[in-house]
Amino acid sequence: MTSPIQYRLIKTEKHTGARLGELITPHGTFPTPMFMPVGTQATVKSISPEELDEMGAGVILSNTYHLWLRPGPEIVKEAGGLHKFMNWDKGILTDSGGFQVFSLAKIRDITEEGVHFRSHLSGEKLFLSPEKAIGIENDLGPDIMMSLDECPPYYESYDYVKKSIERTSRWAERGLKAHRNPDTQGLFGIVQGAGFKDLRKQSAADLTSMDFAGYSIGGLSVGESKPEMNEMLEFTTPLLPTNKPRYLMGVGSPDSLIDGVIRGVDMFDCVLPTRIARNGTCMTSAGRVVIKNAIYAHDFRPLDEECQCYTCRNYSRAYLRHLFKADETFGLRLTSYHNLYFLLHLMQQVREAIMDDTLLDFREEVFEKYGFNQKNARNF
Amino acid sequence: MTSPIQYRLIKTEKHTGARLGELITPHGTFPTPMFMPVGTQATVKSISPEELDEMGAGVILSNTYHLWLRPGPEIVKEAGGLHKFMNWDKGILTDSGGFQVFSLAKIRDITEEGVHFRSHLSGEKLFLSPEKAIGIENDLGPDIMMSLDECPPYYESYDYVKKSIERTSRWAERGLKAHRNPDTQGLFGIVQGAGFKDLRKQSAADLTSMDFAGYSIGGLSVGESKPEMNEMLEFTTPLLPTNKPRYLMGVGSPDSLIDGVIRGVDMFDCVLPTRIARNGTCMTSAGRVVIKNAIYAHDFRPLDEECQCYTCRNYSRAYLRHLFKADETFGLRLTSYHNLYFLLHLMQQVREAIMDDTLLDFREEVFEKYGFNQKNARNF
Ligand SMILES: [Zn+2]
Ligand SMILES: [Zn+2]
Repeated sequence: MTSPIQYRLIKTEKHTGARLGELITPHGTFPTPMFMPVGTQATVKSISPEELDEMGAGVILSNTYHLWLRPGPEIVKEAGGLHKFMNWDKGILTDSGGFQVFSLAKIRDITEEGVHFRSHLSGEKLFLSPEKAIGIENDLGPDIMMSLDECPPYYESYDYVKKSIERTSRWAERGLKAHRNPDTQGLFGIVQGAGFKDLRKQSAADLTSMDFAGYSIGGLSVGESKPEMNEMLEFTTPLLPTNKPRYLMGVGSPDSLIDGVIRGVDMFDCVLPTRIARNGTCMTSAGRVVIKNAIYAHDFRPLDEECQCYTCRNYSRAYLRHLFKADETFGLRLTSYHNLYFLLHLMQQVREAIMDDTLLDFREEVFEKYGFNQKNARNF
Repeated sequence: MTSPIQYRLIKTEKHTGARLGELITPHGTFPTPMFMPVGTQATVKSISPEELDEMGAGVILSNTYHLWLRPGPEIVKEAGGLHKFMNWDKGILTDSGGFQVFSLAKIRDITEEGVHFRSHLSGEKLFLSPEKAIGIENDLGPDIMMSLDECPPYYESYDYVKKSIERTSRWAERGLKAHRNPDTQGLFGIVQGAGFKDLRKQSAADLTSMDFAGYSIGGLSVGESKPEMNEMLEFTTPLLPTNKPRYLMGVGSPDSLIDGVIRGVDMFDCVLPTRIARNGTCMTSAGRVVIKNAIYAHDFRPLDEECQCYTCRNYSRAYLRHLFKADETFGLRLTSYHNLYFLLHLMQQVREAIMDDTLLDFREEVFEKYGFNQKNARNF
């Protein structure tokens, strides 16, 4: 059977091996490398689907754990699936819920069978197994689903991580078997292994021996340094098949996106652009802008003078600052729009640089202008 | 000199005398009767200017008191005026700040000269006079400005109200003299008088003897009953010139809009549609809908089955309920959009009914469907 998710490699960049390609889904074909905006609760906070489309988003991410708890997969299913429920007819990817169970919920017990925990909303006792995760994701109906994994901390002990990845591999196999809609939804396996190369290798070998539609790299960007992340990524991506998409989970700072692409990653997601936007912190071509600062009170230039987004074409820094000082939600709508556009546009430039074999020059230029080359640069 | 604000009467309805007309402003000509969405702090909460345009808004209202305190009129002026600052190129009306000073701020003293009070934000001592109000409004640069008035409570004593309207008339005269931009901004006088007909008459006589571009009716919808408001309106509008626009301040429930038009009003504004939307309360053709209610959890119909707005064309009650339960700002964006569209569309239907001489039938139909004819109907 042909997977509903396909990857087509168009070109590798001459100096780095970065991949230009296409992700083919039941809801359209989208260029890679790509950044996926996060719509945790079936909405990308404060942004409409039409705006996501207009700014060039192809696939968005939604969180299985949150939708399981609220409104519940049965309501989404009854609505005709997540695409219809939230009015988004392009790609959707859901995670497995595992990361949220381990980070938000009160864990009671991890067993071979699955995870016992309490809802962070109601305190209710719940149980998540590989089969349950797949069942929820089948009900939600995204194009791409994740297999249930445990994401051990980066500095966890070797013994614990080894036990964990072996269980995650067994969970992956159970997930594949439980998958009810292999014709319309593609399932990805998640490579874990924290900072241990031989465990990353073992995890990748286990998962690539099974027939997943793509491979995620988990357990990075969880507190380790950028050089550590880059080293682990550089080690892991060559272990993955070239004919399937590679997704680095939870990464969204401009420098890490470029460094991830250089190491062979095709897909990224992160709440960073929308989360910081809600505090009025913006990513711009000239670096980080905290729009509430008094220095912007009389600044009538656009937020980012090189940006062509809706916000930058129509509003000044002084107006944005006013909206934030006055607690107006339209302010966070405008900064969220800009930050998402900034990353989507960055990825478009990255794709052009791969096409032109100038990715390292582009990296240098962005790092210089953004300030990542400066000492003590803020980490996004 | 010709006022920059003109009113053209097109037709009066056969049975009621309701007026169909046009309001001509430096930023466009707009059909009346009209409802004006409120953008207190230079933004209609959570809605973009393009969306206001798309839903058919012509003139929006902004609050002088709020903009005076934050960001300050000098910043708005430096930005090139309110239209540029907030990216809205159609009509803008500002109030005088009087109503907010009397309702939000801590009053110290009302004198012939003006009002001494403390900012509700900083506690700072401030002074608002007719000249100061006009000065701020000249800096803000709206198409239509209001003269400083005192809005006495509906059940205030006769003696107090008489003294108050006489002072408001003197303030109106001072405002007219202080107005620096009579070529580009039109100034309205405000008729007060609480529930006393002879004082309403005296106030109207005073103000119509001066050359205002239009007349506002203030001090209604402040706690009196609907029949009391309608009676006072019916008494007051015939005292105003037919060749100038009439604006009933702070009224925005569907029943009061229709009843105001029947009594000869051309312009209305109110925070009601956006304020209740933020709690998930919606005005629909079938009456009031509180979208958080559990009965909507599995309801996949649009919010209002007769509405053609963006929200109703694309989202279900179940999805809206989910957004509100999950505290997602996109929910209040969608309900705000619908409520504003609902009132703007209602006014369009009102204009058509005036054209067809069927306004009383239309009133009956709306009241019946909305539930205003029911006993103990909710008051909007
Ligand atoms: Zn921008
Ligand atoms: Zn609607």
